[in-house]
Amino acid sequence: MIEAFRRLPGIGPKSAQRLAYHLVRMPETEAEELAEAITGVKQRIKLCQTCADITEQPTCHICQDLNRDRRTICVVEEPLDVTALERTRAYNGLYHVLHGAISPTSGISASDLKMKELLERLQDEDVGEVIVATNTNLDGEATAMYLQRAISPAGIKVTRLARGLPSGTDIEYADDATLAHSLESRSEIND
Amino acid sequence: MIEAFRRLPGIGPKSAQRLAYHLVRMPETEAEELAEAITGVKQRIKLCQTCADITEQPTCHICQDLNRDRRTICVVEEPLDVTALERTRAYNGLYHVLHGAISPTSGISASDLKMKELLERLQDEDVGEVIVATNTNLDGEATAMYLQRAISPAGIKVTRLARGLPSGTDIEYADDATLAHSLESRSEIND
Repeated sequence: MIEAFRRLPGIGPKSAQRLAYHLVRMPETEAEELAEAITGVKQRIKLCQTCADITEQPTCHICQDLNRDRRTICVVEEPLDVTALERTRAYNGLYHVLHGAISPTSGISASDLKMKELLERLQDEDVGEVIVATNTNLDGEATAMYLQRAISPAGIKVTRLARGLPSGTDIEYADDATLAHSLESRSEIND
Repeated sequence: MIEAFRRLPGIGPKSAQRLAYHLVRMPETEAEELAEAITGVKQRIKLCQTCADITEQPTCHICQDLNRDRRTICVVEEPLDVTALERTRAYNGLYHVLHGAISPTSGISASDLKMKELLERLQDEDVGEVIVATNTNLDGEATAMYLQRAISPAGIKVTRLARGLPSGTDIEYADDATLAHSLESRSEIND
């Protein structure tokens, strides 16, 4: 059991031990409820057949929502990125979840991701813009480049989330790469 | 002595006590060296008569450097912001240090800063662009707005460091304001 817990994200050997000992002392009914919750989730949760986000229906609630702008697709790495973007209430288009990023160093290529599904979607649906919202690290950059090269020849605009200084930053504490980029991408202030 | 240490930035009551007890046990020569270093710095350090950065000369080494682009001035809040921007090696213009930011909540106005000195400099020197590099918080924004309104009527371009997602960010952990801004300011990816 300790080994099983250790494979979970954010749980080290000590936390795994604590969790295991806690379960040993737990009333049997509670432990069964937890086990059933885990099995139940695994059985109920599927990937949306359109955007590959996690859902309990064949199609997720965002893809089903007719009030959303169906001509814009935001491509993210993970389902939790959809949650983060939805929390801002600043986006009203659809999503596509890749379930990872292209990573030359870890040997993850486009064929390991939901990339084929995205390109098929772009052929079938009338999409005007693909917003790339991959992480701003090397793998996220590689994925953004791949998407741009695969999609823009079809005449679809490919954009990327702005990079620069985050809100509430002291210039003094900004990292060099971010500061250099924000200098390079500076823009005119208008009234 | 504990009280004197407590007034320094980043030093709480416990650190102040530890520092004070350490000084009590210090050899007298060492303690005198430290005291002289502090007094010496206060006597030698002045503000550059051009940009108000701290320096030991009447004019700082950046303002004296003839290889720098004298038509671009980057306006920062504090001397440490100059250090941060210099570290990136991405900027080759001059600076102007305001020694603070306009803060309606703390009652700090333009006349409490080196703002008059900046506006006089812009009249005397041939400047094409002022880059506002104030912090990305409310006071920094207020200062940027003030600078834009005071400077752009003179026909000088006023720009601001790009805001958005910093390098190495997971979308999942980005704060809502930054994420919403980076969506709004997204830009097309080009080859």
